[in-house]
Amino acid sequence: MMKYFIILALVLSLKATAQKHMVRLAKLEIDSAQLESYQSFLKEEIETSVKVEAGVLTLYAVFEKKHPTKVTILEIYSDTAAYQSHIQTPHFLKYKNGTANMVKSLELVETIPLIPEMKIK
Amino acid sequence: MMKYFIILALVLSLKATAQKHMVRLAKLEIDSAQLESYQSFLKEEIETSVKVEAGVLTLYAVFEKKHPTKVTILEIYSDTAAYQSHIQTPHFLKYKNGTANMVKSLELVETIPLIPEMKIK
Repeated sequence: MMKYFIILALVLSLKATAQKHMVRLAKLEIDSAQLESYQSFLKEEIETSVKVEAGVLTLYAVFEKKHPTKVTILEIYSDTAAYQSHIQTPHFLKYKNGTANMVKSLELVETIPLIPEMKIK
Repeated sequence: MMKYFIILALVLSLKATAQKHMVRLAKLEIDSAQLESYQSFLKEEIETSVKVEAGVLTLYAVFEKKHPTKVTILEIYSDTAAYQSHIQTPHFLKYKNGTANMVKSLELVETIPLIPEMKIK
């Protein structure tokens, strides 16, 4: 009987963890003349963040085939504290300052994931 | 020396595999009166696809907090063959037919991932 309570507690705690996640879509438009340079900044920033920050669960960036200057980034942080910490890291600030004049527009869309525990195989 | 050639061949083959991936954003708007029912159809379809289809690498669906009828799905298939197979499965057809009158608009945006091997931790 105790076993089931422990399993139930684990499941509920997993669920609570998953629902704390901060999940966002960042939609950007980049100056076409500086696209390659922008991609290089973004790639370095993402690779460093995912590697060194436990709370950055993914930064999955895609460029539209028909409009390559349009980028969407699926951002998943373990919680808002992880995000607040992320935007103060040197690698994020290097990206943010280095690309400031390349970004023509930025829209941040807060979202709710349908299945918070979803992964990429 | 041979060892390095084997490692190089493995790295190149991994890179080729990653670049074959089909990565797409599906953007939908759902009839607000049928949102709960739509979410239930979508959840079942995603969970089944990711579980039984090796070539469906993720279907990460998010609903916008400010406009909950707006859904974006990051779809990653191992290649276009995996996608073609996916849309013929009974679980996909159940979702597609079951939600046909709930979907007000659907836009499919083909994309190129910045870092094809990116995962969700």
